[in-house]
Amino acid sequence: MSNYQNYHMTPEEFRRHGRQVVDWIADYYESIESMPVLSQSKPGQTRASLPAHPPEDGETFEAILADVGDIILPGVTHWQSPNFFAFFPANASGPAILGELLSAGLGVQGMLWATSPACTELETHMLDWLVEMLGLPEKFLSTGSGGGVIQDSASSAALCALLAARERATGLASNEQGCDGSLVAYTSNQAHSSIEKAVKIAGLGRQNLRLVDVDDRWAMRPDLLAAQIKNDQQAGRVPFFAAATVGTTSSNGLDPLPEIGNICSANDIWLHVDAAMAGTAALCPEFRWIQKGLELADSYCFNPHKWMFTNFDCDCFYVADRRTLIQALSILPEYLRNQATESGAVIDYRDWHIPLGRRFRSLKLWFVIRYYGVEGLRNHIRRHIALARMFADWVAADDRFELAMPPPLNLVCFRHRGGDEINQQLINRLNRGGDIYLTHTSLHDRLTLRFCIGQTGTEQRHVVQAWHRIKGEAEALEKNL
Amino acid sequence: MSNYQNYHMTPEEFRRHGRQVVDWIADYYESIESMPVLSQSKPGQTRASLPAHPPEDGETFEAILADVGDIILPGVTHWQSPNFFAFFPANASGPAILGELLSAGLGVQGMLWATSPACTELETHMLDWLVEMLGLPEKFLSTGSGGGVIQDSASSAALCALLAARERATGLASNEQGCDGSLVAYTSNQAHSSIEKAVKIAGLGRQNLRLVDVDDRWAMRPDLLAAQIKNDQQAGRVPFFAAATVGTTSSNGLDPLPEIGNICSANDIWLHVDAAMAGTAALCPEFRWIQKGLELADSYCFNPHKWMFTNFDCDCFYVADRRTLIQALSILPEYLRNQATESGAVIDYRDWHIPLGRRFRSLKLWFVIRYYGVEGLRNHIRRHIALARMFADWVAADDRFELAMPPPLNLVCFRHRGGDEINQQLINRLNRGGDIYLTHTSLHDRLTLRFCIGQTGTEQRHVVQAWHRIKGEAEALEKNL
Repeated sequence: MSNYQNYHMTPEEFRRHGRQVVDWIADYYESIESMPVLSQSKPGQTRASLPAHPPEDGETFEAILADVGDIILPGVTHWQSPNFFAFFPANASGPAILGELLSAGLGVQGMLWATSPACTELETHMLDWLVEMLGLPEKFLSTGSGGGVIQDSASSAALCALLAARERATGLASNEQGCDGSLVAYTSNQAHSSIEKAVKIAGLGRQNLRLVDVDDRWAMRPDLLAAQIKNDQQAGRVPFFAAATVGTTSSNGLDPLPEIGNICSANDIWLHVDAAMAGTAALCPEFRWIQKGLELADSYCFNPHKWMFTNFDCDCFYVADRRTLIQALSILPEYLRNQATESGAVIDYRDWHIPLGRRFRSLKLWFVIRYYGVEGLRNHIRRHIALARMFADWVAADDRFELAMPPPLNLVCFRHRGGDEINQQLINRLNRGGDIYLTHTSLHDRLTLRFCIGQTGTEQRHVVQAWHRIKGEAEALEKNL
Repeated sequence: MSNYQNYHMTPEEFRRHGRQVVDWIADYYESIESMPVLSQSKPGQTRASLPAHPPEDGETFEAILADVGDIILPGVTHWQSPNFFAFFPANASGPAILGELLSAGLGVQGMLWATSPACTELETHMLDWLVEMLGLPEKFLSTGSGGGVIQDSASSAALCALLAARERATGLASNEQGCDGSLVAYTSNQAHSSIEKAVKIAGLGRQNLRLVDVDDRWAMRPDLLAAQIKNDQQAGRVPFFAAATVGTTSSNGLDPLPEIGNICSANDIWLHVDAAMAGTAALCPEFRWIQKGLELADSYCFNPHKWMFTNFDCDCFYVADRRTLIQALSILPEYLRNQATESGAVIDYRDWHIPLGRRFRSLKLWFVIRYYGVEGLRNHIRRHIALARMFADWVAADDRFELAMPPPLNLVCFRHRGGDEINQQLINRLNRGGDIYLTHTSLHDRLTLRFCIGQTGTEQRHVVQAWHRIKGEAEALEKNL
């Protein structure tokens, strides 16, 4: 029977336990390469190690922390491992983790400007900094009619863009009377599943989302988009929203923004651009071509929590006209009324996204940008892209393998020429082995391996080792066949 | 010119800077009572202290941390102050903050079971523990047909409940074809604004949300709900969703769940129950009466990030039939396919909410529950409620003041008998003074002060001091009048 339960952790105890956790994390990063990247845990294994019932009495912090290593760690897939090449990265860094810690320690709510002015103003300022850092169109600056906000994810950003577009297309009608089934949305058949999810959530109906076909580099075909819009208009429907992608999840395909943007402008269609991972590349002037045409977009998002060393969640979402977004999402009950809001002189971010509550996420962006400096961030992005090109060259030079396409940035899609079966076995063996973790996609109906370089700690030696492992497993498989 | 930008923070540097941040937070809590609770910052003040342009070169961590005190802190409203009595609490605690730090350090994504099995399984386990801890209906356990998930906020939980209800009411039709305008939703005119926001987002139309009137304790009137449903049915509409509140934001009103639940059951209406703050009181058996009738609900949520010492974000959302929720939100692109998902043996939480990515939020719940123990948590909740009753007794005993109603739990709604003007001046003077922070609402069209006790550090002396301040300002105002 302990008596911990009757007291809160004191500042002195917090100092002691805080150091224990900081050291635990430092130890974790020092030993991360010794653990299998993909957890080898079986369904139910973690739960089986946990007590069936919650404890009546409190426990020591040391006992709890010890269980993190014993019970949790075997069930963790190590997203921060330098040998993680799966999906998209969700990279973190020291300054980001400590910014998150500070945010948790301050524990403020930023739903209104008035509930913590610095929480709103630092966020607005960081989002404006990022417009400059990435060379985004100036219309996204908060100093004009636009502005940026941190969302949890590109999925939520896409939903908010869709809602603002619905608002613009119907006046207040869709908010007041509900959708009438006439609205039609467009994206490519390579776009992220979040677009389809948003269309469903917003009550527009999946059948009113057109999935436009792509070219041989998995970029949306503007001619097909234009034709589809024309068809829909002729059928009496209302094209109102298009989502273009800069760097599709499957293959890093880059939609042609200038052509798509012109079509959208001509037809009064809201253009949302999702550059969740790839957007970070625009820190480097030499990669800004990926966002050419973005000045035609109504909204834009990219995720520092993917490739800009800022731990999840931190999606940066911009609109060119903030009024439409705010109209779509605004609520103002009496208990939230306050002088600052009514003066119109401040931003209340509650009206820029789905949740009401929000934490102080801009702290970690501020920490990351200042700790690295813009030039430091560029340096790491250039390094990742150079490593991806090096890896792609090795694949291209090996007769047994082929590239699905030359990698535009940091994602290499490739396959063994032996067909789906050998590629499936290859990926299974690699991931079971624990040295590296990579995932797959389907391109032209063929199983394709994705090798995405974006982890904070990934260096040349990790990529060299990964290629060595891939070749080794391929050789073993070839012998068996 | 520094060279920080070319390197990541090493584990050794992380140990050093991590300790600096831990100490900063401990110092903050030691000095928090010396700062004005409500930030006295003016619009634009924080931004004016920040450089207009991002730094090209990296800076030392020490320089960044120093600016947190100099630039950020004056713009912070101290939600963690023991003198914070505004809105609802968003309380935090040492174990929660350190759980959040650990989550940031691990940096895993829990969108699929396969992307980090422990992230999913610990969450499921904690949500099942909470069913037992709170005495919730067993149908919400993951071991049956239901289950729980962590959402960012009760707003998002309400939206997901609404989407699941829409799915159930229309089969796949609303997802596939969009809404047809026939669906009608119900809540009380005291319900949180998030219900209206969800109805708008889901494309149902605000005019299809009925705001049912309340009784003199701000609880929804079941007779009016039943009459309204009948009216709508006779008009050929389809009642499909009702949201009841256990502890309204404005006044902590408690809707009568048994009566509402029976009406919903009889009319095949999805009943969602939002107990965002008040739900935590059910940790104590003597307060479980607040959720009587919850066995009739289809979904439920409460927020450990309000009153259970777990820093934002952590809303616990439960459904009795998880299939409907998953059908409403499921997406499965090729790049997310994996063996574990296809086996059906695991939970993939991506299909339980709006975003795809998700962080390891159950760690902080696990830390909090184990550190305090269930009995420890109960102890603090009982203490807060006892303090609120003590405060209410003082108000009731003072002829100049009146209670809006006897406080059911930890929120006291009261006013000076001198009318709106004096109450407005009272609240302005109190909040400008910096010693305490409280907010207002409107009840029966009268400005009413809200005094909500739920901060981690709040003790009797803080409540005593607050009442002293309130009486003092009232006396000063009375003299002026």
